Amino acid sequence: MQSLMTMTELSINTDRLLNDFEELAEIGATLDGGVSRLALSNEDLEARSWFADKIEAIGLQLHDDDAGNLSGILRCGESGAKTLLIGSHLDSVPNGGRYDGSVGVLAALECLRRVKEEGLRLPYHLEAINFTDEEGCWQSLFGSRGLTGNLPENYMADKEADNGPFRAALFRAGIRPSDVQKAKRNPATIAGYLELHIEQGGRLDAAGIDIGIVTGIVGRTTYEIVFHGQASHSGTTELERRKDALLGASRFICQAYDLWQTDYPEGVFNCGNLIVSPGKFNLIPDQARLTLECRHADKNMLSLMERDLLELAQSEAGVHNITVTSRRVQHMPAAVMTESAVQIVEQVCESMDINYTRLISYAGHDAQMLSGFTPTAMIFIPSVGGASHNPNEYTDWEHVVQGANVLLRSVLLMAQGL
Amino acid sequence: MQSLMTMTELSINTDRLLNDFEELAEIGATLDGGVSRLALSNEDLEARSWFADKIEAIGLQLHDDDAGNLSGILRCGESGAKTLLIGSHLDSVPNGGRYDGSVGVLAALECLRRVKEEGLRLPYHLEAINFTDEEGCWQSLFGSRGLTGNLPENYMADKEADNGPFRAALFRAGIRPSDVQKAKRNPATIAGYLELHIEQGGRLDAAGIDIGIVTGIVGRTTYEIVFHGQASHSGTTELERRKDALLGASRFICQAYDLWQTDYPEGVFNCGNLIVSPGKFNLIPDQARLTLECRHADKNMLSLMERDLLELAQSEAGVHNITVTSRRVQHMPAAVMTESAVQIVEQVCESMDINYTRLISYAGHDAQMLSGFTPTAMIFIPSVGGASHNPNEYTDWEHVVQGANVLLRSVLLMAQGL
Repeated sequence: MQSLMTMTELSINTDRLLNDFEELAEIGATLDGGVSRLALSNEDLEARSWFADKIEAIGLQLHDDDAGNLSGILRCGESGAKTLLIGSHLDSVPNGGRYDGSVGVLAALECLRRVKEEGLRLPYHLEAINFTDEEGCWQSLFGSRGLTGNLPENYMADKEADNGPFRAALFRAGIRPSDVQKAKRNPATIAGYLELHIEQGGRLDAAGIDIGIVTGIVGRTTYEIVFHGQASHSGTTELERRKDALLGASRFICQAYDLWQTDYPEGVFNCGNLIVSPGKFNLIPDQARLTLECRHADKNMLSLMERDLLELAQSEAGVHNITVTSRRVQHMPAAVMTESAVQIVEQVCESMDINYTRLISYAGHDAQMLSGFTPTAMIFIPSVGGASHNPNEYTDWEHVVQGANVLLRSVLLMAQGL
Repeated sequence: MQSLMTMTELSINTDRLLNDFEELAEIGATLDGGVSRLALSNEDLEARSWFADKIEAIGLQLHDDDAGNLSGILRCGESGAKTLLIGSHLDSVPNGGRYDGSVGVLAALECLRRVKEEGLRLPYHLEAINFTDEEGCWQSLFGSRGLTGNLPENYMADKEADNGPFRAALFRAGIRPSDVQKAKRNPATIAGYLELHIEQGGRLDAAGIDIGIVTGIVGRTTYEIVFHGQASHSGTTELERRKDALLGASRFICQAYDLWQTDYPEGVFNCGNLIVSPGKFNLIPDQARLTLECRHADKNMLSLMERDLLELAQSEAGVHNITVTSRRVQHMPAAVMTESAVQIVEQVCESMDINYTRLISYAGHDAQMLSGFTPTAMIFIPSVGGASHNPNEYTDWEHVVQGANVLLRSVLLMAQGL
């Protein structure tokens, strides 16, 4: 058995990782160089099948749980040892990029492959895991919420939405909706969680920093805000008689942007969709259904931001003689990474003489569910120009390799603390 | 034969008109008291069938042309006489009101019924006509454009839209798309056109005026304006890197309203629909597809208004680091009613001691197509509160009756000039 010092100088096999990356990027590939692998879609199922084949080819133990999380396990610890989880997700947003999620799952797999071929014994088993539906095609962080016991019992009982298609998609992927809660693990059996991911923002790239060590993940709340006006003939309804739901929604969007910049510059705001009815050239819109998202690392500020935005919607509606209703669709609390785990990644970066920084993640990740469950750290690598969730997403291959090596060495260094 | 003086004192049969009105309102009735009779829908076809039954029951000649215009003809003139058209439309917008169009067709039918039962001989035949798709469910003023030769040869060849459903809907209604041009009439055979319609605006109602005599109908141009941004992760894309198509569209809508009020207060402006993609909570929108409509009675002002709005879209796009493309979807030139016909309606109003005014119509009507084709006049009755294109549309029954009588007496008075 090698000494820990030697172990922490191991590196991943670059060519092998690149080969995996290129194979995976073919699954759900779009014409413009991105991927569409929506959770539970044919493309996602194909990616899972590809991942399972890899796991079996390497000689790892294939495991899937009741939430559809798929993993390869390396029994490199003593009998009865805990398991260190390493992973991310293989699903993507529609027309997304090739790096988001994939890099973390493939790097995890490569870590296990290296440990296995070196024949290392560690104080824990290793498990490379792909979490189901991180992106929220159906329910954000579905797999990691299932594994950590954070899925509400009534997760299927959304009265506003028809969950039939979600139910069907789960069944088709071999997941029984009534069994999903059984995916919950006992935290006493888990040693920790490590995740490598692209930053998806432009901070590391702009600052020329190679590694970001996440200290916290912003909380996120989503709303559906509906502006209710009155349909009437566009040609004959004078301005003062109009109850234009689209105008109300538009003024809200503009002012909400201003509110965000003025009062919550450290938060995040997005209006991702707006559906107008009746949607005819010659009819004043009677309804504008807006989807709104807020993020903030500070939970109190997040609450205040939500309150101010809802108040703004009400006051804008009043100005335009229309009404507004809103529904809180989802809330993910802000998450704090585990300081001891963060320090291990820092130690690795220092030993490798890597330019690193601590930072907050403005994007949600499976790590935010794991962080309240087991010691968790998350490693970011730069996204060129900050592009993400579109085909332009790109990370220099050297950064992918460096991130995978920081991940591998963190896996090994963690053993010293146990 | 009665003298012209006696003839012009004829009145319509109120109970019969009310009965027809109530029967028709059942076809496509919505739960909240409106109607949905979209052109060529089952409900529209049912209304046509009902209209055809009425025509045959009265003993009029049933006629339909290659554009699906359906009419009842009373041969009350000499052999070889011209035909005076009287009509409007039976189709409605989605969830529209019971008066728009219907009142004009039913009053026309009642005029023919009264002339027939009095056995009057006139210097022209009378034709009560229902024009196809006035509202533009498929193509605005389809029937009246067909009858007057204003449908372009390539009316089906819109490369941007899939015209398959339109084609199918025409075939189902017994209209052959390739034969539609045959609906064109020879203007030498037409004596004129009269149309009774609700105002759809609130001017008559607010001023307490009983009859509006239309002198012109605004020109109308519609555009599809597409704002092109870039999809990216909402959490990680800082404001300065965002290319938010929805924000650009929203700011355009707000500023376009201001431009309208400041520079073109006599015109009309509407944004009836906005379609956002990809439409996800956590993605900055990469596309916002806006439908825009401008109306103005002055054709030069309409052109300037269009130019200014398109320039505004370009400049707003520039500010938000996105791009914009636009397509002119449809243009209906402004129309001027025939002064001699307008004066006949005025004479009738004066002889009946009715409070009337001349006005411009901000809504499009079949009369705007007929006005360049044959001597045309249009009679408005008040819409309570100006409500239109929704179930709240309402006109006092006394106003409907008065309008129908003005129509009948105008039909008869017109004979004096010939």
